[in-house]
Amino acid sequence: MANLYIALVHWPVYNREGETVATSVTPLDLHDLGRIALTYEAAGYYVTVPYESQRRLVEEIIYHWREGVGGEHSPQRQRALAAANVVGTVEEAFDAVAGREGTEPFVVGTTARQLAGAIPAERLGDEAGERPVLLLFGTGYGLTEDILLAADATLQPITGRGDFNHLPVRAAIAIYLDRILGDGKE
Amino acid sequence: MANLYIALVHWPVYNREGETVATSVTPLDLHDLGRIALTYEAAGYYVTVPYESQRRLVEEIIYHWREGVGGEHSPQRQRALAAANVVGTVEEAFDAVAGREGTEPFVVGTTARQLAGAIPAERLGDEAGERPVLLLFGTGYGLTEDILLAADATLQPITGRGDFNHLPVRAAIAIYLDRILGDGKE
Repeated sequence: MANLYIALVHWPVYNREGETVATSVTPLDLHDLGRIALTYEAAGYYVTVPYESQRRLVEEIIYHWREGVGGEHSPQRQRALAAANVVGTVEEAFDAVAGREGTEPFVVGTTARQLAGAIPAERLGDEAGERPVLLLFGTGYGLTEDILLAADATLQPITGRGDFNHLPVRAAIAIYLDRILGDGKE
Repeated sequence: MANLYIALVHWPVYNREGETVATSVTPLDLHDLGRIALTYEAAGYYVTVPYESQRRLVEEIIYHWREGVGGEHSPQRQRALAAANVVGTVEEAFDAVAGREGTEPFVVGTTARQLAGAIPAERLGDEAGERPVLLLFGTGYGLTEDILLAADATLQPITGRGDFNHLPVRAAIAIYLDRILGDGKE
């Protein structure tokens, strides 16, 4: 598979009532996502944050661990945040990947909902072909229909075994990356 | 596979220097672990906490969401914590599972280190046979050698694709459960 990029989306996503909202950044997500991305050698990850004040907060966290005193204290965290980038919107993440790769990425949505035409994670490499992949994950209660409809493909949900349907986004990212790229898959 | 139980172990685990320590509880882990366990229909999960004061904290968190006002506010969290139990040691978790199942569980260690004889997660069902499984996860820098040697089996590590070797325990639990029980596996 070509290079894979991840975007952790804080807007537009649903809240519990199904309204489209912006969620707050969970600092722990930045570290977890960094470690997961590094484990599976994702080429980079983007945190999409619509509010300027929250973007600054995320930038400060990243700076602290990547270039400030945090990194001296914990080289593991420094490495984990090396591929982190803050952007305002999904479009900016798309443009950043396109600029870096010299070609537009194949955009892939994820959702806990059953959608017609969704593809198994294991088949993503075939679907994307030679194009880099930008994999979108929604915080809160998930990516909006608009985002999913605008994507080139959507992955089938992680259903597990029961009817419970609300994995933490950190866990969903880990499981999807393992299904797509796990332990030496090409 | 028979019933699977999870233990999130806070002692004995290694710290960064390889010393055996007790780690502090991360409240977020309780929620994440609950959601992951429920998604894959684990029969129960144990949080092993050696210090009385921390055990009380965990019990209060569980009570708040399971039976207090938190549960009224968020039925999802209430469900996610329904299978949570606090114990002092791995032995207590073992005894609790044995008491509940009427037979001793097959104890399985996990580690990021490469150990001779470790089995692939996908083969755990065959190894355990009819016995219930108690799957141990270490916080901090992982379960000690003593715990791993005393277990009936150890799972092969999640290696991903690169040399980075420090997944958050939340992510490791999600990936292992998906490999063992994912999407309708029996």
